Amino acid sequence: MIEFGKLFETLPEDISEEIFSELVRGDNIKIERIVSKGHSSPASGWYDQAEHEWVAVLKGAAKIAFENGEEIHLTAGSYLTISAHTKHKVTWTTPDMETIWLAVHYK
Amino acid sequence: MIEFGKLFETLPEDISEEIFSELVRGDNIKIERIVSKGHSSPASGWYDQAEHEWVAVLKGAAKIAFENGEEIHLTAGSYLTISAHTKHKVTWTTPDMETIWLAVHYK
Repeated sequence: MIEFGKLFETLPEDISEEIFSELVRGDNIKIERIVSKGHSSPASGWYDQAEHEWVAVLKGAAKIAFENGEEIHLTAGSYLTISAHTKHKVTWTTPDMETIWLAVHYK
Repeated sequence: MIEFGKLFETLPEDISEEIFSELVRGDNIKIERIVSKGHSSPASGWYDQAEHEWVAVLKGAAKIAFENGEEIHLTAGSYLTISAHTKHKVTWTTPDMETIWLAVHYK
């Protein structure tokens, strides 16, 4: 079975909310595309995920902060591996253009 | 634990052979970056993989052929899901620039 798609096309016109598109769901994995434009995580609280995440910024720019105070500036091509239960949040995405993320969640 | 890297930098100078860089290895998953420049699979034989593969072209262009005769032209942003044991091969990558692939192998 072959499934085909385009990461940089079929962008939604209305991105007043972040858009999550599931590309693959398997027993041990989920791959999704996320489109942001000036969005960040809610001001309070952290993402605290039960699974590991590998995430890349393919277009645009973003900042991710961690509970230990570290903040990482991601530009096109930057990737991060975030182990399960490493608390993090998105503090900024560029408001000038879409930021396209690829996220792989895995056990 | 946080690991950080750049997909579009740290490209090898010598790509007379395709370059495979492992970014993540887990129990059920392997994520790798592949850099090609005019490479294709050996003329005879097919990739016949025991695991599923999600593969995207992030820069450059490539063609993948399948045993059923189908051939798909991938440009930047194109992705494919190839189920385990779906025989395929890379028939072309652009000779003018590097083609950067992201491949996720999963069970």
